[in-house]
Amino acid sequence: MADFSIGVDLGGTNLRIAAVDEHGVLLEKVTLGTQVALGRDRVIHDMCEAIRHLAHKYEGSGALQGIGIGVPGIIDMKTGTLRESPNLPGWAESPVRTQIEQMLGTRVILENDANAAAFGENWLGAARNVDDMAMLTLGTGVGGGIVFGRAIWHGMTGMAGEFGHITVEPEGVQCKCGNRGCLEQYASATAVVRMAREAIEQHIAPGLSHAASANPEFSAKAVYNLAIQGDEEAKKIFRRVGHALGIVIADLVNALNLPMYVVGGGVSSAWEAFSPAIFDELRKRSMVYAATAPPSVPGEEQGASAQVEPGGPTRTIVTRALLGSDAGLYGAARLPMVADEMVSHSYPAGAKMRKII
Amino acid sequence: MADFSIGVDLGGTNLRIAAVDEHGVLLEKVTLGTQVALGRDRVIHDMCEAIRHLAHKYEGSGALQGIGIGVPGIIDMKTGTLRESPNLPGWAESPVRTQIEQMLGTRVILENDANAAAFGENWLGAARNVDDMAMLTLGTGVGGGIVFGRAIWHGMTGMAGEFGHITVEPEGVQCKCGNRGCLEQYASATAVVRMAREAIEQHIAPGLSHAASANPEFSAKAVYNLAIQGDEEAKKIFRRVGHALGIVIADLVNALNLPMYVVGGGVSSAWEAFSPAIFDELRKRSMVYAATAPPSVPGEEQGASAQVEPGGPTRTIVTRALLGSDAGLYGAARLPMVADEMVSHSYPAGAKMRKII
Repeated sequence: MADFSIGVDLGGTNLRIAAVDEHGVLLEKVTLGTQVALGRDRVIHDMCEAIRHLAHKYEGSGALQGIGIGVPGIIDMKTGTLRESPNLPGWAESPVRTQIEQMLGTRVILENDANAAAFGENWLGAARNVDDMAMLTLGTGVGGGIVFGRAIWHGMTGMAGEFGHITVEPEGVQCKCGNRGCLEQYASATAVVRMAREAIEQHIAPGLSHAASANPEFSAKAVYNLAIQGDEEAKKIFRRVGHALGIVIADLVNALNLPMYVVGGGVSSAWEAFSPAIFDELRKRSMVYAATAPPSVPGEEQGASAQVEPGGPTRTIVTRALLGSDAGLYGAARLPMVADEMVSHSYPAGAKMRKII
Repeated sequence: MADFSIGVDLGGTNLRIAAVDEHGVLLEKVTLGTQVALGRDRVIHDMCEAIRHLAHKYEGSGALQGIGIGVPGIIDMKTGTLRESPNLPGWAESPVRTQIEQMLGTRVILENDANAAAFGENWLGAARNVDDMAMLTLGTGVGGGIVFGRAIWHGMTGMAGEFGHITVEPEGVQCKCGNRGCLEQYASATAVVRMAREAIEQHIAPGLSHAASANPEFSAKAVYNLAIQGDEEAKKIFRRVGHALGIVIADLVNALNLPMYVVGGGVSSAWEAFSPAIFDELRKRSMVYAATAPPSVPGEEQGASAQVEPGGPTRTIVTRALLGSDAGLYGAARLPMVADEMVSHSYPAGAKMRKII
């Protein structure tokens, strides 16, 4: 008998719901398409149906500890309202948490999806042996999350961890956020495709040009496939990804001196192609990194070094995520298990779990 | 009757020792020259003499809570050893804390000087009404400190807060730390003088040229004096200072979402000359700042907004330090008053105060 909770990863494309027990064992995962076009009520209805199904199915195996939901966007933690969510059009300023709580009759915890992913990697993934860590998620955009003392750091208004909008090139590519030269403009899937199209337009990239004309849905994955086949222009694009990531991770190492920085999200599957450039930049740009880097061969996979050291960690580890696309799902499921400890980090105090309807 | 403690600001030029009571009232401040050339033992001897003098003088007014010392350099918090200290040649790798504790017969707390300054501003200065804050100190170099929950954030190995080495221009001016384009290369007193000399060499700055030839000790202060007199090249230099600071503060706002960022150190007396450029960059480069900026006129002094808001702060305040060169001294004095609460942040647990010899 182990208590369990239900985690939800509400993406713009996929809606995934999982029952996870308190030891981190996945009991069951349900994947649905997110029917964004049919509106918010429909998506919330589908989600609540799946949550009820899992809650009833596993109620014999332990107590349900709650529901945690990872949402792409900025969340007002006090009101449970989505402030901004480019991938969920029409959801902004809506009282999402209240609506779901009323449908389920129980407490629900909303969390930014990148924060949930960081929390998942801290619970069960690459950062499971450290108390403090930061994660960068490289997807359509670039997100981030910070964990201090095994609790998500929300900052003053729940907006902490926006690593995607740290400046890499002060006069660089215009970003939708208003800034120029944001990390997101060099290290997201969108950026990889843009850089590939720029190279094609300059007629310097026959391999990319061929791949793009052969495939109308030319993607970051296609650029990566060329890079691992040795295409020089494709390799150069991933070096630019690593260069930009290296600058930002060096900034974070200098500012925060954390024991671990985890790189996840879809683009992180190209780790081999971009990580050597990360480590080149880190060694040059952070004396804190230089003083604390693990003694492994530079660019080598460092996850293995991420073990418990007596007296606490003393090495700065930069590594890829371990949980893949499930990081946010596990993190969301973890939220209700520790919400009471995290009250000081801005969960509503005194909120109690009730039996799900 | 109020308990008191003794704070020390051990600089490369001045050695200042103060008795401060638990309410933050300065009882007495002693300023000595730091006899760096006469060696470490002599400096520590002078410091301990002054500490004993103040300890005995005020022992009737309350209990001495301990000694806190702010030191320029990276400190190994576990061993009390200075790892690196460019302004105290010959002090690196020396067991400074043990040596002082043996001379005084009581517990001593060492702290990085920029961390101590942040702690002082959080106790009595611009950030007194917030629990979480960051400070940038603009002096010969650029230092920084982070306070979370009214405790100094040391990071894994005591190296957190190195904001001076965050990258502003990836291919910019070479820094001694190994990086290029560090904030320190654009926002320190050293950088102001370098930028002035560069303008003089380009024969575009008659005002600066005249000031430099008239004064062999041409300083950042001289450049500031020209700027407030309306010299265009001098004004441009301070706009570059603000531009670089704005990029880094925007990075910190995006990453940490703190309620307050304080700018201190000697160069901060030129606040009027560089702060408009900070706010220009912040509004452009941080959507988090744009969403949380106070409704005051941009560039206006924002310290007045730094009051307690019910339910916690919701505005991002960027302001100049209030305590001037005493911030580090007050912060150092505060350390022994709260050391027990800060144990989890890496002070040696179980250390007890004994009566000073």
